[in-house]
Amino acid sequence: MRVNPGRSGVAIDAGGYTVHVGAGLRDDLAPLIAETAPAHHYAVITDANISARYAEPLVAALARFGRTSLHVIPGGESFKTRESWSRLTDELLDAGGTRDTTVVALGGGVVGDLAGFVAATYMRGVPVVQVPTTLLAMIDASVGGKTGVDTQAGKNLVGAFHAPAAVVADVDVLSTLPPAHRRAGLAEAIKHGVIADADYLTTIESQLDALQRAESGATLPLVARSVEIKADVARADPLERGRRRILNFGHTLGHAIEHVSGFSLLHGECVAIGMVLEARLAERLGIAEAGVAERIEDTLIRAKLPTSRPAHMDVDAIVASTRRDKKARAGAVEYALPTRIGEMTEQGGRWSVPVDEETVRAILA
Amino acid sequence: MRVNPGRSGVAIDAGGYTVHVGAGLRDDLAPLIAETAPAHHYAVITDANISARYAEPLVAALARFGRTSLHVIPGGESFKTRESWSRLTDELLDAGGTRDTTVVALGGGVVGDLAGFVAATYMRGVPVVQVPTTLLAMIDASVGGKTGVDTQAGKNLVGAFHAPAAVVADVDVLSTLPPAHRRAGLAEAIKHGVIADADYLTTIESQLDALQRAESGATLPLVARSVEIKADVARADPLERGRRRILNFGHTLGHAIEHVSGFSLLHGECVAIGMVLEARLAERLGIAEAGVAERIEDTLIRAKLPTSRPAHMDVDAIVASTRRDKKARAGAVEYALPTRIGEMTEQGGRWSVPVDEETVRAILA
Repeated sequence: MRVNPGRSGVAIDAGGYTVHVGAGLRDDLAPLIAETAPAHHYAVITDANISARYAEPLVAALARFGRTSLHVIPGGESFKTRESWSRLTDELLDAGGTRDTTVVALGGGVVGDLAGFVAATYMRGVPVVQVPTTLLAMIDASVGGKTGVDTQAGKNLVGAFHAPAAVVADVDVLSTLPPAHRRAGLAEAIKHGVIADADYLTTIESQLDALQRAESGATLPLVARSVEIKADVARADPLERGRRRILNFGHTLGHAIEHVSGFSLLHGECVAIGMVLEARLAERLGIAEAGVAERIEDTLIRAKLPTSRPAHMDVDAIVASTRRDKKARAGAVEYALPTRIGEMTEQGGRWSVPVDEETVRAILA
Repeated sequence: MRVNPGRSGVAIDAGGYTVHVGAGLRDDLAPLIAETAPAHHYAVITDANISARYAEPLVAALARFGRTSLHVIPGGESFKTRESWSRLTDELLDAGGTRDTTVVALGGGVVGDLAGFVAATYMRGVPVVQVPTTLLAMIDASVGGKTGVDTQAGKNLVGAFHAPAAVVADVDVLSTLPPAHRRAGLAEAIKHGVIADADYLTTIESQLDALQRAESGATLPLVARSVEIKADVARADPLERGRRRILNFGHTLGHAIEHVSGFSLLHGECVAIGMVLEARLAERLGIAEAGVAERIEDTLIRAKLPTSRPAHMDVDAIVASTRRDKKARAGAVEYALPTRIGEMTEQGGRWSVPVDEETVRAILA
């Protein structure tokens, strides 16, 4: 669903908003924001790692279009909290913001989720433009309208669905991303291949070297195809009542492992481990054909991603953490599982299946 | 838009959900909730004043349909905060709640707004059934999907639009409401007449004695007609981009006075004062025909409601507080103003007009 392919990139219709993917979009950013979500006040939310390099030039450029303010949080998942949300909201109020405000989320997934939740709840909702600066945020968090924060009890337990006014992804910024973060982003792209497009998985495998070097010739089409897959699934089921659950493949155990690790592992690394474990679960339950888990594991190993739980990590703690999963219904934790590469299981309109804890324990052991 | 008028009340289609208005609905409450918003877990949120009398029987009745939990906040606007929201969310998480949870908001406007915001943001949104126990909440807060909390900077500055799964209003509970609270609720009903239905205003005037005694023969039709007006306006413009703003008549100055009073005045009392002042503003601007303000003031006086700002209250503080209003756009505070009884001003699709502070000051002086 690509529209208006320009010289420097593509524009993807995500259903109500456009995802711009390009290389070297920096000068286009402020005009794009002001055109898509015109406001009296532009509030740029970012983190301390990004602030100097990208945020200050963006704020300066936005000043041509309205009042601006810059709000900086320390980097890292541990700041994706209700306290940060509350402080940012108060900063926007102190800056004199009214409903006539556009929030600009400039950063990775933490900034996107947190700033998106600020926008979703500020004056009962103002527009947000997502400007992702990590591969993971470009292909996952910035698209689909999920916003939220973590609590002591788990990740993303508090939040809202709040579609962005637009997403602008400039793959040029990825060249400065640490290699481990680029690899973690690739885990979600590999997931997109597994859940929806076997050919795409093959393409990723053939380009792994160029992708790890963040070459824009390989990265731009990757971001574009992943955004298409994510947007197509999210658009058809914005509130995650059905098929959108397939995006959670690898995430039920992945989130639990991330939580038990105290966020010392990257999200994408945990999703990589979660995909292998959940694919094995699917094979054991007779849902996936034989070899699916092995194919996923091979690809992840070639992408230098982890594929098994840390040896010291307690199985009981992981199982206990899955119980907090939002996908749990009627008390049983549910999993989105593959049947083969490119296809997920669906039973009577349900795209996730309850799995008893004994089976999960057997896979984790 | 009444559908299925039953023996003991009426059911009003509010666009996607039903508002049940009746007398003596108590035994019907739990089955109605379980039928409308079936869940594994029913979380009843209420305040300390209501808990013993209504909440415990409701929780006991809901236990036939699923797991239940009861969450009690102290009463009063001062508890409609992010801290209460955060605590309630943690209580729901501790109670093992997943997405398969229905929140029941049992109480007045504070409980409805707060519990609604908990439901709107819990796991990115779970259903809420609003069970209003005050006249104000029945005819205003429970219908239309606005939820939120206050901050130091003002009322309802943080929140979300989250339509209820259903609203159940039992006018029998109003007999135990303090008379001042019943009168405060009447202020919003009078507003409904002013903004949308001159005949309804006449009907209210003719029934003021019976209404102040909370006779159900007068109160049930009042709640039903006010819900119809509110629901019709909210349904056509759920996100308050246009005509829904007429519901804010009396509220721009009303909220400011309420804020400056430190919430020592009831919301409905402040709206009463706000309506008189804003109607005078409309006359001074040549928007309202002469006599509109006087007619509103007469009705409010007969309903034993205040009609002028407290003499000691600082005009500058009120004006400063209006600047926080969510309806402010491009820096100017906007007002929804009447042209005559039953009709609000509209200019080119806009239902609120910017008013300069000097004019507001002249009216307040």
